[in-house]
Amino acid sequence: MQIQFLGTGAGMPSKQRNTSALALKLLEERGSFWLFDCGEAAQHRMLHTTLKPRKLDKIFITHLHGDHIFGLPGMLGSRGFLGGSGRLDLYGPKGLQEWIEVTLRISRTHLNYELAVHEVEAGTVFEDDSFTVRALPLDHVMPCFGYRIEQKPLPGKLLVDRAIEAGVPKGPLLRELKEGRDIALEDGTVVRSLEVTGPPQPGFTVAVLGDTRFTDNAVELSWDADIVIHEATFDKESAHLAGPYGHSTIMDAAKTAREAGARSLIANHISARFLPEDAGHLAAEAEEIFPQVAIAEDLAEYEWKNGMLRRINP
Amino acid sequence: MQIQFLGTGAGMPSKQRNTSALALKLLEERGSFWLFDCGEAAQHRMLHTTLKPRKLDKIFITHLHGDHIFGLPGMLGSRGFLGGSGRLDLYGPKGLQEWIEVTLRISRTHLNYELAVHEVEAGTVFEDDSFTVRALPLDHVMPCFGYRIEQKPLPGKLLVDRAIEAGVPKGPLLRELKEGRDIALEDGTVVRSLEVTGPPQPGFTVAVLGDTRFTDNAVELSWDADIVIHEATFDKESAHLAGPYGHSTIMDAAKTAREAGARSLIANHISARFLPEDAGHLAAEAEEIFPQVAIAEDLAEYEWKNGMLRRINP
Ligand SMILES: [Zn+2]
Ligand SMILES: [Zn+2]
Repeated sequence: MQIQFLGTGAGMPSKQRNTSALALKLLEERGSFWLFDCGEAAQHRMLHTTLKPRKLDKIFITHLHGDHIFGLPGMLGSRGFLGGSGRLDLYGPKGLQEWIEVTLRISRTHLNYELAVHEVEAGTVFEDDSFTVRALPLDHVMPCFGYRIEQKPLPGKLLVDRAIEAGVPKGPLLRELKEGRDIALEDGTVVRSLEVTGPPQPGFTVAVLGDTRFTDNAVELSWDADIVIHEATFDKESAHLAGPYGHSTIMDAAKTAREAGARSLIANHISARFLPEDAGHLAAEAEEIFPQVAIAEDLAEYEWKNGMLRRINP
Repeated sequence: MQIQFLGTGAGMPSKQRNTSALALKLLEERGSFWLFDCGEAAQHRMLHTTLKPRKLDKIFITHLHGDHIFGLPGMLGSRGFLGGSGRLDLYGPKGLQEWIEVTLRISRTHLNYELAVHEVEAGTVFEDDSFTVRALPLDHVMPCFGYRIEQKPLPGKLLVDRAIEAGVPKGPLLRELKEGRDIALEDGTVVRSLEVTGPPQPGFTVAVLGDTRFTDNAVELSWDADIVIHEATFDKESAHLAGPYGHSTIMDAAKTAREAGARSLIANHISARFLPEDAGHLAAEAEEIFPQVAIAEDLAEYEWKNGMLRRINP
């Protein structure tokens, strides 16, 4: 799993920061990636990454402000042009379906794949064998969701010596055991996966929060998470603007991560008032109460490995 | 008058070419600029120019395909954020008004200026003392317009010696005469502007054509124009694709300019199949029948001066 930012700004694009979009790369886990929000020119930013629109199979929208959705129609169209033929699931607040329908109709965009639009409410919005995605409303000036993405525990490591001791021959049966399935040997002996594998490995948990004031639901979504991605439109000096505009300071973001007992925080949705050289000052405000903080930058890519958040591109 | 391209590609953005948008800069003529089409990320490209969104007062849309309109909502919103408070006139085919209304409502974009949407039909779509804009339908796979922008003749040069001979004192009366108004001297003598000015100077004419197959209406809009901006999605080798997709080859563009007796051609809407180094090859195809041709590039700026088209930025 990696996370790559396609837009980390607030409200309007600047030369440094595009409007909101980030990719949750699940290429090893599921051979695909997901987008969270899709501000204008997300597809343009994607041209400067290794992300292939045809591998995009889910988009989660936090809220319908333009800086979070105006790149959607272009992304949907280009995904088709670029060979995306599998179904695409689009999740977001009420109103999303109407906008997409009208936009595709008026622009005569004919998608050559199935688009399923899900207007979400609080609760589990997606679940399969390996992932759960849960949404809760946040506290913005319009309906806005945060998402918690939880990978289910992975099967423990195969203890090969123990399996061979139990009489399992080298070959495909080992793989069955490794993937959690019990098997029967030729002589009828049943070998249980649990007997020859180590303890299940915990999956990762990421919270991607939309625009919001400090709110308990953000803490709940971030509970015990490995990575919390939280907006931080303002700093201490501009804190008086956060409430009226329905936003957070970087201190609010840090408070959320801390109260949730999260392991790391990436501050996102940074106002254009902050220049690239202000990143240190912003981080310092968060570090007062939550030291594991990074300030998102466009195209920055992060990985969660061995219990650590690290940036993996320059 | 200058023309600056914000997007010169076809269908989808590439690293080299954004989707369609161009600025007709009328800063000396009217203190404002106009946009023709507004593909996604036109506002992002604009960040790399001297264009100020608040000086944008008209947008003309050729047709409603996504690569020509998906940058509109963001442009409208950012114009307001960036101090644009004067009225904005938006012209385009039927359907534009519905899309804009739904998009602004769903995204809760509240413009702090008056937006007047005009759904155009063939004929004069705008006229005032100094400019006329005329539209005619072209031949694309959906309703699509071309626009002819005609500057009205400018007053002739003031012949100062002749005015002074006629008894006009130095000062504001000279200015009145220069701007085409007749005046009365203190002794009651009337001096007519025409007597003390040279012949009227012709204004410029630019044709901005949307996506189209070769069509007589494009020739009519380009008639005797100084600059024709015509799509050229294909070349000779890919010409078989032009008809089915409702597009032109660069030879069709050259034919239009030549039949219209136009003075220069800028080929635009270039397919991503052509790399930057193919510009010479494309130009060569046009030059067989129309030598005054330039291949548009993103951010390239052109000026019409002394009967010549010239590029004014590197
Ligand atoms: Zn918002
Ligand atoms: Zn088109």
